[in-house]
Amino acid sequence: MALNDTPLFDEALLRNLTVDNGVISESNMNGLLLRPLCTRDYDKGFMNTLAQLTDVGDVSPEMFIDRFEEMKRLGNHYVVVVENTQTGSVVATALLILERKFIHACTTRGRVEDVVVCNSVRGKGLGKLLISTLTVLAEKLGCYKVTLECRPAKVPFYERFGYNVSEELYMQYRFGH
Amino acid sequence: MALNDTPLFDEALLRNLTVDNGVISESNMNGLLLRPLCTRDYDKGFMNTLAQLTDVGDVSPEMFIDRFEEMKRLGNHYVVVVENTQTGSVVATALLILERKFIHACTTRGRVEDVVVCNSVRGKGLGKLLISTLTVLAEKLGCYKVTLECRPAKVPFYERFGYNVSEELYMQYRFGH
Repeated sequence: MALNDTPLFDEALLRNLTVDNGVISESNMNGLLLRPLCTRDYDKGFMNTLAQLTDVGDVSPEMFIDRFEEMKRLGNHYVVVVENTQTGSVVATALLILERKFIHACTTRGRVEDVVVCNSVRGKGLGKLLISTLTVLAEKLGCYKVTLECRPAKVPFYERFGYNVSEELYMQYRFGH
Repeated sequence: MALNDTPLFDEALLRNLTVDNGVISESNMNGLLLRPLCTRDYDKGFMNTLAQLTDVGDVSPEMFIDRFEEMKRLGNHYVVVVENTQTGSVVATALLILERKFIHACTTRGRVEDVVVCNSVRGKGLGKLLISTLTVLAEKLGCYKVTLECRPAKVPFYERFGYNVSEELYMQYRFGH
């Protein structure tokens, strides 16, 4: 299977999303295109962008396609990318994941994960674009809430979008492999 | 479609899980059976048990089956229950959800959610049983880490299983519907 432009999810989901500050359409007009991930993004620097967030290891095109196909089959992993259409490179990405629940009359919850904007394009509002988009997308997809974890220094950033620090604490267990 | 005993996921995944304190087999011997959720649990008080955690709303058998089937189709939602085999009622439950990632060489992350033990059976080690089980299950399923959110008062409980409070903060955005 070759790398191609098939989107991870229906591109129409990203159309007509309205956010208070209108940042989504504004960014689209400046040579920056927000769209679903496709496998061709492997060649457009997607993993290099993610590498600015954390260790990404050694991912071959085959591994990338396998993971993409699994996410597509699941249908609840929404990876968006921002492409600089002039250079043809991915300069930002974020992930919205949906969890299905029995509580609250079989509700759905969203999680925002792996938000990263390349150093080269910081300060252009791409972080705002990603968070605005995934937050309204979560509501459009029926989520009763959307959550995320972040470093304390980033709290004011997320508060601008209506996120509040919870009284609950975030705990983790890392396996030794 | 009628309520039945088809498990949400392969029961074999819960066999031979080894935990340091051996609590899993110990609990099994006292008329308490840990197993995957099935739709018949609707009639065994599953929603009443969840209601001790939070609002569960009005869920019909059809809604329950639909949500169950969606989780089963997704294949990354692992709801376990503890049944009191003498009374035939569900007395505890918890959920492990897997997230697929591109980071860390296409890794997987686990999340523990919706952990609840009925008031009537508190103090019998069922909370330990659930957390021990889902933590080792997450490792068995290939997770590099497993995380959860909890109230500050519950931190010492989870620390016993190797969970650590993260420096990251947990933030949420609740939609108004």
